[in-house]
Amino acid sequence: MTLKQYLAERIAMIDRALDAWVPAETVEPETIHRAMRYSLFVGGKRIRPILCMAAADVVRADTPGIAEAAVTLEMIHTYSLIHDDLPALDNDDLRRGQPTNHKVFGEAMAILAGDSLLTLAFQVLGSLRQVDATIRSALVVELAAASGTVRGMIGGQVLDIEGEGQTPTAELLEKIHRAKTGALLRASVRMGAIYAGASPADLASLSEYGEHAGLAFQIIDDILDIEQSSEALGKTAGKDLHQQKVTFPAVYGLAESRRMAEEERQKAHAALVRFGDRGTRLLEIADLIVDRKS
Amino acid sequence: MTLKQYLAERIAMIDRALDAWVPAETVEPETIHRAMRYSLFVGGKRIRPILCMAAADVVRADTPGIAEAAVTLEMIHTYSLIHDDLPALDNDDLRRGQPTNHKVFGEAMAILAGDSLLTLAFQVLGSLRQVDATIRSALVVELAAASGTVRGMIGGQVLDIEGEGQTPTAELLEKIHRAKTGALLRASVRMGAIYAGASPADLASLSEYGEHAGLAFQIIDDILDIEQSSEALGKTAGKDLHQQKVTFPAVYGLAESRRMAEEERQKAHAALVRFGDRGTRLLEIADLIVDRKS
Repeated sequence: MTLKQYLAERIAMIDRALDAWVPAETVEPETIHRAMRYSLFVGGKRIRPILCMAAADVVRADTPGIAEAAVTLEMIHTYSLIHDDLPALDNDDLRRGQPTNHKVFGEAMAILAGDSLLTLAFQVLGSLRQVDATIRSALVVELAAASGTVRGMIGGQVLDIEGEGQTPTAELLEKIHRAKTGALLRASVRMGAIYAGASPADLASLSEYGEHAGLAFQIIDDILDIEQSSEALGKTAGKDLHQQKVTFPAVYGLAESRRMAEEERQKAHAALVRFGDRGTRLLEIADLIVDRKS
Repeated sequence: MTLKQYLAERIAMIDRALDAWVPAETVEPETIHRAMRYSLFVGGKRIRPILCMAAADVVRADTPGIAEAAVTLEMIHTYSLIHDDLPALDNDDLRRGQPTNHKVFGEAMAILAGDSLLTLAFQVLGSLRQVDATIRSALVVELAAASGTVRGMIGGQVLDIEGEGQTPTAELLEKIHRAKTGALLRASVRMGAIYAGASPADLASLSEYGEHAGLAFQIIDDILDIEQSSEALGKTAGKDLHQQKVTFPAVYGLAESRRMAEEERQKAHAALVRFGDRGTRLLEIADLIVDRKS
């Protein structure tokens, strides 16, 4: 199977699992379910659930039900985008090429839609039927910690907001990105490994892969914000500079940032060596992350 | 032990567990931890964790670690108040007698503080050490469902917002309150029972108790909003009328609402009969709910 086929197959599984878990637009109260579905199905690369499923594939040939665990990462990611885009935060009108949630449903409903996706993610993890309760609990803790305030997503968000306009230092940059996007990307890989029952050694290697792939993802994101148009990105380009965000290009310049992304790609590859052929998909996904244009 | 002593002891346990689980104000990023702690420790009756602990006491004499499970209900309740009070939602300046979270920390931080408490609640449930993983998972599902969109807290909130200015019918009223406050209060009792390993029959009776005590709580809340001053309530009084909310007094009038609360109290008592003396605390708590003045 080519990478393209692999991804298309995974994305279809992800969309089916999302559709099964998020109440239909006809379920009362309809508005909130419309708002949740709008942001979930407006597009998106599904990189987090894909990382989760591909990591599980490294550990075991077959992991039934993995898509259900994987979509909880997309729910968390999507809730964070909805809240991020609110007027009180980044105040953005465009996301994934479409009007942001609050532009369509109003601020109140956008806040509640974010809350709902966050809540639903844990309901899904607690309800997984094809792994035992010890794994369900471990997944809950993994996802919550990666999304939380201490070296997790929300913590990174706070540092990011507070960092606006501050002198962009390498130390602050690393702290923000490790937490803001790094933690959830790393957790994506780890959750797949945990779901599949990885050995401690396999889990450690996969965590390392996740850390480097996650950092590469963020460096490229910062670069694309400068190099690409809003149209290509599907979100407002050039925002980081405008908001004086602490980014890789702001600290290191574009050329050095590009070199650093390459270095992270190599480190991600290296973490997979012990898996031999089984690591190929994750290796290709690291390439995809670094080589993408949007 | 008198009820007063019992409550004081439980509240001390709840505050200790909250303090242990919510990162200190010195933990980076400090602002978000200050904002989380502000709303958690600004006061509050702790009725949900108390119901949880008292329900566990009915099932078993000793349930070590129950306070940790119980505080997740307070985290969810507090997050819902923080988000509820935002300008885009109820736009309230006063809560538990103090300025609301966004008034002190700004809207961005209030949104993130709510998100953080919601996330932390599940991290705590997934991490409970003194019950097995099956119970941890069951608690996650119970809390998430009660907080969610389908007959849960967020769903009730949406119906409540959409109901503003609509003709207040008995049917709409019941639907709103069963979801908005009823689901989490019922879950409080159920989570205590589940934590303690209740039999299906015990769980059913306690669920029934929780349903009636929860409804009584909401009816009294609606009555107090009319009868009491903002000072006595610690939040803006008379808001329901002003916002044309669908409330019990709006549908049934004050006298009939009071009679309905009495009826719910009796039904809550009746659900406890099979527990004999062991049910006394929950019975007293139902009385407290109906007889309270704020």
